[in-house]
Amino acid sequence: MNDKKRIIVIGASACGAKAASRIKRLRPDYAVTILDQGQYISYAACGIPYYLSGKVRDLDDLLKTTYGRIRDVQYFKDLKDITIHTNVRVLDIDRSARRVGATNMSTGESLSFEYDTLVLAAGASPKMPPIPGSNLKGVYHLTRMEDAAAIAQEIHDHVHGSAVIVGGGFIGVEAAEALILKKWNVTLLERESQLFPGMLDFEISALIQEHFYENRVDSEFNAEIISFEGEEGKINKVITKNNEYRADIVIVATGLRPNTAIAEAAGLALGDTRALKVNALMQTSDPAIYAGGDMVENKHIITGKPCYIPLGSTANKHGRVIADNICGMNSKFPGIQGTFVCKAFEYNVGSTGITETQAKQMGLDAFALSVCGFDKAHYYPDSQIMALKIIFENGTHRLLGLQAVGKGDVARRIDVAATAMRLDATLQDIIYLDMAYAPPFSPALDVFVTALNVAENVNSGILKPITVMEAKRLLDHEDAVLMVDVRSDLEFRRAHVEHPKVINIPLDELHQKIDELPRDKKIICTCQLGLRGFSAQRILDAAGFPDVCTLEGGLFLWPWKEDMI
Amino acid sequence: MNDKKRIIVIGASACGAKAASRIKRLRPDYAVTILDQGQYISYAACGIPYYLSGKVRDLDDLLKTTYGRIRDVQYFKDLKDITIHTNVRVLDIDRSARRVGATNMSTGESLSFEYDTLVLAAGASPKMPPIPGSNLKGVYHLTRMEDAAAIAQEIHDHVHGSAVIVGGGFIGVEAAEALILKKWNVTLLERESQLFPGMLDFEISALIQEHFYENRVDSEFNAEIISFEGEEGKINKVITKNNEYRADIVIVATGLRPNTAIAEAAGLALGDTRALKVNALMQTSDPAIYAGGDMVENKHIITGKPCYIPLGSTANKHGRVIADNICGMNSKFPGIQGTFVCKAFEYNVGSTGITETQAKQMGLDAFALSVCGFDKAHYYPDSQIMALKIIFENGTHRLLGLQAVGKGDVARRIDVAATAMRLDATLQDIIYLDMAYAPPFSPALDVFVTALNVAENVNSGILKPITVMEAKRLLDHEDAVLMVDVRSDLEFRRAHVEHPKVINIPLDELHQKIDELPRDKKIICTCQLGLRGFSAQRILDAAGFPDVCTLEGGLFLWPWKEDMI
Repeated sequence: MNDKKRIIVIGASACGAKAASRIKRLRPDYAVTILDQGQYISYAACGIPYYLSGKVRDLDDLLKTTYGRIRDVQYFKDLKDITIHTNVRVLDIDRSARRVGATNMSTGESLSFEYDTLVLAAGASPKMPPIPGSNLKGVYHLTRMEDAAAIAQEIHDHVHGSAVIVGGGFIGVEAAEALILKKWNVTLLERESQLFPGMLDFEISALIQEHFYENRVDSEFNAEIISFEGEEGKINKVITKNNEYRADIVIVATGLRPNTAIAEAAGLALGDTRALKVNALMQTSDPAIYAGGDMVENKHIITGKPCYIPLGSTANKHGRVIADNICGMNSKFPGIQGTFVCKAFEYNVGSTGITETQAKQMGLDAFALSVCGFDKAHYYPDSQIMALKIIFENGTHRLLGLQAVGKGDVARRIDVAATAMRLDATLQDIIYLDMAYAPPFSPALDVFVTALNVAENVNSGILKPITVMEAKRLLDHEDAVLMVDVRSDLEFRRAHVEHPKVINIPLDELHQKIDELPRDKKIICTCQLGLRGFSAQRILDAAGFPDVCTLEGGLFLWPWKEDMI
Repeated sequence: MNDKKRIIVIGASACGAKAASRIKRLRPDYAVTILDQGQYISYAACGIPYYLSGKVRDLDDLLKTTYGRIRDVQYFKDLKDITIHTNVRVLDIDRSARRVGATNMSTGESLSFEYDTLVLAAGASPKMPPIPGSNLKGVYHLTRMEDAAAIAQEIHDHVHGSAVIVGGGFIGVEAAEALILKKWNVTLLERESQLFPGMLDFEISALIQEHFYENRVDSEFNAEIISFEGEEGKINKVITKNNEYRADIVIVATGLRPNTAIAEAAGLALGDTRALKVNALMQTSDPAIYAGGDMVENKHIITGKPCYIPLGSTANKHGRVIADNICGMNSKFPGIQGTFVCKAFEYNVGSTGITETQAKQMGLDAFALSVCGFDKAHYYPDSQIMALKIIFENGTHRLLGLQAVGKGDVARRIDVAATAMRLDATLQDIIYLDMAYAPPFSPALDVFVTALNVAENVNSGILKPITVMEAKRLLDHEDAVLMVDVRSDLEFRRAHVEHPKVINIPLDELHQKIDELPRDKKIICTCQLGLRGFSAQRILDAAGFPDVCTLEGGLFLWPWKEDMI
């Protein structure tokens, strides 16, 4: 009788490799075998855009441990006592016999692996929209080492080549940056009206979009791609409903779909999102089969609902939970919050929790507020303005989400909000949060704390905010509106919203000019970041003006830069 | 009858200026007057070291708003309708008459100000240890604009001058960096045995100390200063018990004492720390008198006890709470957690909560663990190793503290821990925290999440850690000890702890060489960062070795670099 427990893991990426490694640390006596259909295992797929840009020198670097050893079959054998079969495609799972059927793709040999416990970590595949010409050479995804090598070769072959990127999520954005750094012409096509659709609210994504323009990325939004066109089987053009773009390569980054076919065929339950369903222990509907990584859905901690948000960090955590449970430790995966961060040229952008749009779609009673401020002490060199959008639930004041964008340390503020939300924080719980302060790292009041303070000002009715979206609508469509820009003459002359309903009264002249202002119009007080606007609003409030408000986030957040002269 | 409420604020720095400004935003009808004994008001004292180093170009930059206006008396009058009297020294407070007596230090004129509510924000003064020669010219503190201007002049006058800095807290460390950047010779004298005494545990501060050596800061610890010596009234030497140092200037940064004399004379209660005592509303023992900033003590949220930790960020928050309460909004200041961050050349260092030493002093049942890891994906350019030390309460697993040091984004990990502690997080609450991940910002598992995972490994008895301090003690003083360095040959040859009880068996040879290891000795498994050491420990555990442990944080954390060859 063989009492050495046999664990078969399908997939040697983040979740599978992590689960296998930890199982061996917890139970060196277990026999762990991984089957992977690829050639490369345990590679850092998220690093591929940085290999393309040249920031990561060698493709091998994405395969190396922190101490420089390639993570190949030999490495897993020697250092971890894990057997990996590469180039092996799993064909079926016989759950009653606890057996996996597979084929060696190099030799054609049929293989069969018996398990006591099975771990599914088969990942996801890039979606390909149904566009004619998708099979042309030069149309790539950006998820595999083979993609990386092929695109790097294209970059090498075409000096100042042209790339069309399909999809404005983070892979598309990272790819755009990489190719611009390689001095390519880059066009990004996005079906929705903004970058990071479904991940950021419009006015926050607009700041990235602006920064994309500055970096010469051409973008088409609401893009309808008609076809990919080519010559001799190689892409050379992308046709949209409105335009036509030269393309030496196309990178399609329109999301992932979970690789659930084998699991589904074996009768394992899928979830509402059509990804594999697992419980908090990461068990599928068959308790002898665990699953994690990009093939499963997660509970969204803020919404309480299942969601499909595949991410390497989540996959690693899944791997740990799976290993624990297989080895008899009771670990539960609590779910995710949709936290992400992305570098886009000089800007960083991130989010955690839900957006205002999502809150509305869910019918939540939420209030959202945008706040701009410096990432470091403003007098410190390279201090940068950053925009935060914070979302709370009305009544409970529970934090629901934070979005942040700017050149500064966005990840820090996102992670703080993610931590607060994980612990069900309300505004009042964290309003005087003791965040780390020194001039090279933050203003005396961190911009996140400022955002909380401003939110409290709104709650207590002192600050009456108006969003840039609403202010724009009023300026364009309502008569009884006046925007009073209270910055100095000099600041106003440098750039302001050019509109007949916009006037400049510097804050220090507001008292003496107060009688020039109409009492029968809605007055929108604006400045650069919002603080002087707020002071002006309070002065007009005290003077009995009936309808005064402050532009949230100030003009830094005004997304229509073409209005500004 | 005058029904316009009169608010007198003593002190125009962070707390006073913030309180005054917010009072005027909440109640533009209130009359707010600030008395300040200095010439400069509302200046960014924390920025002074960066002015000295040249990172901040003009001293005026420390006085400017984000939009470039100098915060002077006129600014407060014009933009905020606040009256400020500078060069006014407060002499006494007549609480029954609600009157402040003062004198104009320029004219000698006696002044009297009546108040409805008084705000004390008189700050703190640098401590001067009782050292002969303290009055010599060239002996400075680093808290006032006048200090900044005078030291900048000295830097200008002495090319490659020599400075002695007294005190290894953050002001001393920032001053050392500033003067090294100006190509001065710098000696730092610290009475205790480490940098950041009382703020970091020894082995964490040792990493900064090492980095100080690399940057040519000469340090003397356990320093006993005998005297400051000079010629013609100007400093030129500092004599310690063991050494003598040339000194063109001395900067004394040995802490602050709260300016409580006037308050004490007025009969207001001091706290256990001898700083002014306030309640959660920031009221003193006289409900008509509020106080905040560097002159008051705070409740420490983790210890529950009063503490005196003056900081600009805290002072700003105090100002807001004071304003709210004066204007009839009920705001409570919850206390602080001792969070700090400091830049020291290329390193960043920070802490929140309490250290292991403090936990022991308090008699808390705590366990501490050091973990090293990369700040970004390790293949991303400029990724850096960072060390975290995390402290939990045994039993409850409540997070008590985090210290972090390294070249990467220390502030982010500190702020996440600070947020978690503010919300009373236990290890289990946050172990699978959804932190922002992308290669330019963090590894797939953030180093903080890794630290939590490692802590859980210790809790569950899988990982048996040993600190560098204890490992060093065992190597030096016990016979039945063997340290097995499981890194590769190459890594071992590059640098290792040179000691007869240290051997190298690469992890991938451990199985075949396992019988060479003694079963009657304690075996300490080590590697670079701790993961391979842990794997080795588990292999030896499984092979029945009775006493095996893993060096916490790996050799990165070994503070005795002189042992390493």
